[in-house]
Order: sequence, then structure tokens, then C-alpha cells
Amino acid sequence: MPSIAVTPHEENGNVSDLTAQGIKHALQKTAPSQLKSASLSDSTTQVHSANHQHDAPTPLAELDASLLQTTYTTSPRPVPALGSPEMASQKVCTDHMIQARWTSSTGWDAPTLQPYGPLSLMPTASCLHYATECFEGMKLYRGYDGKLRLFRPQLNCARMLMSTSRIALPGFPPEELLKLIVRLCATDGAKWLPKDRPGSFLYIRPTMIASDPALGVQRPTEALLFVILTCFAPMDALDGGMRLLASKDDMVRAWPGGFGYAKVGANYGPSLVAQGEARALGYHQILWLFGEECFVTEAGASNFFVVWRTREGVMQIVTACLTERIVLDGVTRRSVLELARERFAIGYEGLEAVEVVERKFSMAEVVEAVEEGRLIEAFAAGTAWFVAPVGHIHFRGKDFKVPMGENGQSGRYTAVVKEWLRGIMWGTNGQESHEWGHIVDEK
Amino acid sequence: MPSIAVTPHEENGNVSDLTAQGIKHALQKTAPSQLKSASLSDSTTQVHSANHQHDAPTPLAELDASLLQTTYTTSPRPVPALGSPEMASQKVCTDHMIQARWTSSTGWDAPTLQPYGPLSLMPTASCLHYATECFEGMKLYRGYDGKLRLFRPQLNCARMLMSTSRIALPGFPPEELLKLIVRLCATDGAKWLPKDRPGSFLYIRPTMIASDPALGVQRPTEALLFVILTCFAPMDALDGGMRLLASKDDMVRAWPGGFGYAKVGANYGPSLVAQGEARALGYHQILWLFGEECFVTEAGASNFFVVWRTREGVMQIVTACLTERIVLDGVTRRSVLELARERFAIGYEGLEAVEVVERKFSMAEVVEAVEEGRLIEAFAAGTAWFVAPVGHIHFRGKDFKVPMGENGQSGRYTAVVKEWLRGIMWGTNGQESHEWGHIVDEK
Repeated sequence: MPSIAVTPHEENGNVSDLTAQGIKHALQKTAPSQLKSASLSDSTTQVHSANHQHDAPTPLAELDASLLQTTYTTSPRPVPALGSPEMASQKVCTDHMIQARWTSSTGWDAPTLQPYGPLSLMPTASCLHYATECFEGMKLYRGYDGKLRLFRPQLNCARMLMSTSRIALPGFPPEELLKLIVRLCATDGAKWLPKDRPGSFLYIRPTMIASDPALGVQRPTEALLFVILTCFAPMDALDGGMRLLASKDDMVRAWPGGFGYAKVGANYGPSLVAQGEARALGYHQILWLFGEECFVTEAGASNFFVVWRTREGVMQIVTACLTERIVLDGVTRRSVLELARERFAIGYEGLEAVEVVERKFSMAEVVEAVEEGRLIEAFAAGTAWFVAPVGHIHFRGKDFKVPMGENGQSGRYTAVVKEWLRGIMWGTNGQESHEWGHIVDEK
Repeated sequence: MPSIAVTPHEENGNVSDLTAQGIKHALQKTAPSQLKSASLSDSTTQVHSANHQHDAPTPLAELDASLLQTTYTTSPRPVPALGSPEMASQKVCTDHMIQARWTSSTGWDAPTLQPYGPLSLMPTASCLHYATECFEGMKLYRGYDGKLRLFRPQLNCARMLMSTSRIALPGFPPEELLKLIVRLCATDGAKWLPKDRPGSFLYIRPTMIASDPALGVQRPTEALLFVILTCFAPMDALDGGMRLLASKDDMVRAWPGGFGYAKVGANYGPSLVAQGEARALGYHQILWLFGEECFVTEAGASNFFVVWRTREGVMQIVTACLTERIVLDGVTRRSVLELARERFAIGYEGLEAVEVVERKFSMAEVVEAVEEGRLIEAFAAGTAWFVAPVGHIHFRGKDFKVPMGENGQSGRYTAVVKEWLRGIMWGTNGQESHEWGHIVDEK
């Protein structure tokens, strides 16, 4: 392997600019006959496409959504009823899926839109042994205005590219992945998110796996990209808020120099023992701490926010910073931060102005804020759980109650942020035309 | 999920006694109608079987090799010639494989011995997204005395159980897994390791994956155990020894509280970018360092040993200890330590007596030993690479040459250890009846 993809950590700790500009910049740089690069930041951080890891004499084929080959199902399946066990099972996918195969010698095959069904993998497939896999989590929203929307999907596609580079999978132009996702949503959206179910969503799971049928521990030479749409039940608010169990120091999610910032499978399986233990004890998620100082990083697979008043009297929204690369650069996280910076800067509908802070903060600070009555709210934010008020944290043998607002359901800042995002996602609250809402034209 | 498997890290850092006694102890404790436990240590550390994570009203079926259902292939494939590209590809498996399915509601189905072929997995399968997978690496040896042997297979089966517990997969009696492995080896061994190829081997890969077709991030409720046998070319000695590139602090393999000690997929995929970079620069493997002190942990996916003379003049074999649980408890590692303790204690065939040490040691110590002429040898040890002399280490911009003995091929301690192990594995050097060689009766 004469040339190797350069991963972002080798150049710059900042991968936080997953913006449309970043993607555009990446695409401008993408030419099929040369080593690709896709900017994930303000032009200083580059992810070289692993699609060109060999000095091949002929250019490798790039992922190209315009080559899509379609085969529609002849056995369409029924859409689960709202409230049905099927809807809650997270097992029912829509009629179709996207697939695209890659090899290190030929690049990307023409992608396909085909009936949803099982994958055939050799028992030697790399992804079954070495966790050579990464994914994204997105949603397709059926708006209250009847429209189908994605929420900032460019960010997910850019992050997917970043994740592939961390786990030695091939690169691709993120915009092509977005086109494939949009095409699948357009194909199955009308049936699976009917217009009489406004406020509902399908969960979108773009996934890439290494499919090499060879046991050598080495960079994958074959890969499969697929995108599926899964039915999820609408998420009920957790009665009394999310209950979090702080991790113990013998169970650490991520580490500097590791891969906590990437959406790779290897971050999830190893967390399930702790998560199962937490659920057995009546908690919803683990609050992942890091280091002897017990820095607060993530809540389950979501980012974690506190709203507190400093001892100096300043109201702040605080979440862990990305600099150590142990925290996922969540799309919801980023959106909360951006909206809060924009709209809370000078107060909002009777709510006090808030300073928005990304920094390392420790459980000791959270505990002090609770004990001194300065902790106003806390919430988890991510695509799966959306914005979930936190009501309870257990840390080192002690229970800490987090205020849940006057109604006991949600603090007000949390509720306002959630409503802002809901408006953009589902086209309501006057947010029908927000630039973050990516409207999907239905077939 | 009312009850949760207890993982060993919660009770005791020591999982180092993967002995036959430990297994026997585990089996004595295994009864199908109650929560299982399998001792992986000197009776203080217990891994509770995740096979009984629910308080089910009826006992779950245990993995039981005596229920094996066999279907022999009607399309036997040719055995690759020695030296052929097929043999080197690590893609050719033997005619048959073992499979066993598990669900959280019924336990283990009857295992099958069936024709080798692809697995069908739903795109939602947990293992494709969350790295809910673990494996073992073993070899089946065709002895110079004509016999087929496994090498200490009980240790691999016990470690497999430990790994499943770390990645939230179901438990099983390790002895049943061993019986299934032996049965597969007995079935395919005669054809695929013909008696006219003494000194060759098949690579055995027991694997467990979570097959739940549901995207929820949670403990698996369905799993598949499979065992395959793969053709590997005989390993040539690396000309000039193994060349190692020390990892940089932005790429960390494992950390305390993580899972570096378990053979889970999540340890491998994230290492491939660094490994690919090392290969592109002309190195064979990464020498994985940990922490600001640059403690030496593993070499590639092998354990790492140095032979040095201390400043006080004591000859030592040193390898990283297991206490922080960031290093794999390798079967070859353990065997090297045990043989060296037994046979080098008072010198051996003109070689000076050696003290055997398991402790944290740093690159600074290695560098000092090189610079002061005290580094005698270094080698990597693991199932895949066996015992491989190290000739070269690159660390922070500097190249360090490691002595490779008078013949330039291997230091003498390394060569002697390797010969001892070869004798036991392939039934030669007067080691035909060593207790570590597990003879497989052929069909």
C-alpha cells in the first residue's frame, strides 16, 4: 500500500466545520483522477479519500449518484400502524434500500436502489471480525405542512466521510451520498410517512462496512455502503426526565487518540455492558465521565448540556468541547449551540440572556451547581433521543436531582430549544423555510 | 433487562488464569437452570454467563456440542497447492463450518456442522453497526509425527467467553465450544492438512456476532456463533526481522477502562489507519505505546517482549503486565512466560539464566538499553505471527536497531523459545507428548 489516507487528527484537532461551505469546498477539490480531499473544517483540515489508497494506473470510479440503477419491489409490505408493536420494534424497514459496492482496484460500482432485504456476507468478512464499520443517524420528518424534510443532512454526510477515514474505509463525495439518501427518501417517503401522520419520522441509517472475505488484519479492499429507512415509534417524553448513571472509572467510553469523535461501531458495542447495567438499575443512559477529574462527556449516545448560573451570576449553557476528540460532533449539539448563541444572546420571551460555552467541565462542577442551587436545567441532545430533559444523575453513590421546570416536565430553556428545532424539522412554529430544513420532493 | 452479566473488571483485574483448572472449575459451576459463572482466574474472578440475562421463567438452553446436527457438503472444493496465490490469500476456507444460534428468549439452538458458505444478515444486524462481535485466533497443526494438534485450546475458549462478556454477547460453557472446534478440525483436517504437509497449519477462527435485526443501541437479543478454518501460507521469517513503528500519541490502541484485554472487533478496525500508514512507510507493524511515559504494550496484534541485561547485570525477559487490562492475555505470551520461567531459570544449552518479568516498561527504558548496549533481543509473540524476531524500532524520529543474533536472523533466546513452541505444536524436538498439545483424532 504505497499511499495512505491522511486522517484529520494528524493535521488538526478541529473537525467541527461540517458546514455546507465545507462540503462545497470538498466537492470543488474532488476530481476522479487524483487523490481526493474533502475539507471538514475551515480549509485547514483535510480528509484524503481512501478511495485512492493505491497508486493505481487508471483512476478509480467515484461514487456517483447519477449512475443509480433502480429495481422496485414487487412485494411491497404494509406500513405498521401507529402504536403497533411493529412500529416500536425498530425492526421494520421500508420497501427499498440503497447499496453501493467498492473495491480498492476498481473504486465504486454504480449504486443501486433495490428491494430491502438481507445482505450476504462471507463468514470471513472483515466487518464481522474487526469492526470495520461506521454509520450515520438521521431522520426523515413528515412536516405539519405536509412536506418531507431532512435536517442539515450535509453535516451527516460529511461526518460519515470523516468516520470512514478513521476506520480505514473508502472515501466518497459527501454530496453523492446525500443524493442517494434523498432518492431513497423520495421513493419510500410518501407511503411510509403518510401525510396523515404529521409529526412522525423515519430513521435513516447510512452504513458502510468492509466486506473483504479475508481474515488478514489490514486495510479493507472491499466495502459496501448501504442506506436503510427504519420505522420508529414517536418518542414519548420520559416521565420525570432522563435518569443518568455516571460511569465508573473502570468503564471508559473514549480516550484521547482513540475514536470517540467518530461514528464507528467500535464506540457502541463496548458500551452495552455498562448501559445494560444502568438499565437494570432503573437508569436510561450512562453519563460518560472521563479521567480522574471526572469530566462530563456524553449521555448515552447523545451529547450532554447543562444550564447553570455561575457563581458570578452569569447564566450559561455548557457542553463538552470537541478539542480532545473524545466527544461526538453531534448535529443536534451543533444546532443547539448555534441557535442558542443566536437567539438567547439578548434573552428570549422572558428568559434571561445566556452565554453559550463549549469547554471541559467536571462532575464536581455539576455537583457544586446542584448543591448551591445554581443548576437550572440539564438535557441530552442527539438525533435518536432528540432533546431530552435530564431529571436525575447518580454519581459515586449519591443521587442528584436536576430541576425539571415548574411543570416538572422540562426546564424552560430546554423546552424552547426543543421547540425551535421541532419547528425546523417538522415545518411549524413559523420555521417552514429555515435553511436547515432540507425539503425532499416526493415521487 | 432485570439482571445483567457481571464483567470481570468489576470484580478483579486478574483474568490471567485461563488454565485447564479454571475451565474445569467453570464447568463444575455450570448448570443449565441457573445463572452461570465461569472462572477465568484463581476462583476470585467470575464471568457470569450472559446467556441468562433475563429472569426467564424457563431455563434457557445451554450450548451443547452433543446436539450437533451435521450436513456434509456435496460440493467439496480443492485444497490450494502450497505456494499458490489461493493459499496466500487468507480467503480459502475448508469445506465445513460450525454454526450455533442464540436468542435471549430460548438460549442456544442445537449447533450445526454444515457446508461452508455465506451468512445472511439483515442490514439492521447489530454487528454491522455496533461492533457487537468478538473472536479467537487458533491454529490446527499438522505434526511431523503425522498427528493433528491444537495448542492449549482451552485457553482460547475461556478467553472467548471473557470477550463475549465484555461485548454484551451471550455466555456458554467453554468446553462445549472446544468440542465443536475439535469436531470441525476432525472433519476437515485430514483433507485440508494432508499428512504430506507436516509443519503446516490451518487458522481457526471462532467468532460470535450479534445478529439482532433491530437498530436500538442495546444488549443483543440474538447472536450467532460460528467457527471456520482458513488456509494460511506458512509464515516466512521476515528478512532482517520485524520492523516496528512506535505509535504517536494521537493514535492510542487501548486505555484503562476500555477493552484492550478482550478479543473484540473494536480493538482492530480502529488500528488499521495507523497500521496502513506504517506499512506504507516500510514497517510491518505498529509498536503500540501508552501514555505520556510511552509504556510499551503490544506490537501490531501480538504481544511484545524484550530480552535485556539490567544495569545491575541481570538478564531478563520482559513483557507488559496485564494489570491495567490494556494488553491482550495472549496464549503465546503466556506460554513463552511459562516456558521461560521453567527452562531458563538456571540457564539452557550455554545460554545464561534469565529472570522473567511482567511489568510496565517504557520506550525510554528500551532506548537506554539500546544505547547502553544492554538490549539483547526483542520479539513479537502471538498466534498469527508466532514468534517473530524484531530487528528495528522507529520512535519519535529516531531509528533503533535491535540485535538479531550472530546469524542476523534471530537472537538465541528468541530462537530457543520458538523451537520449544514449535516442538509442542508440531510434535517434534522430543515434545510429541507435551500436555499443551491437544491431539485431534481424525475421521
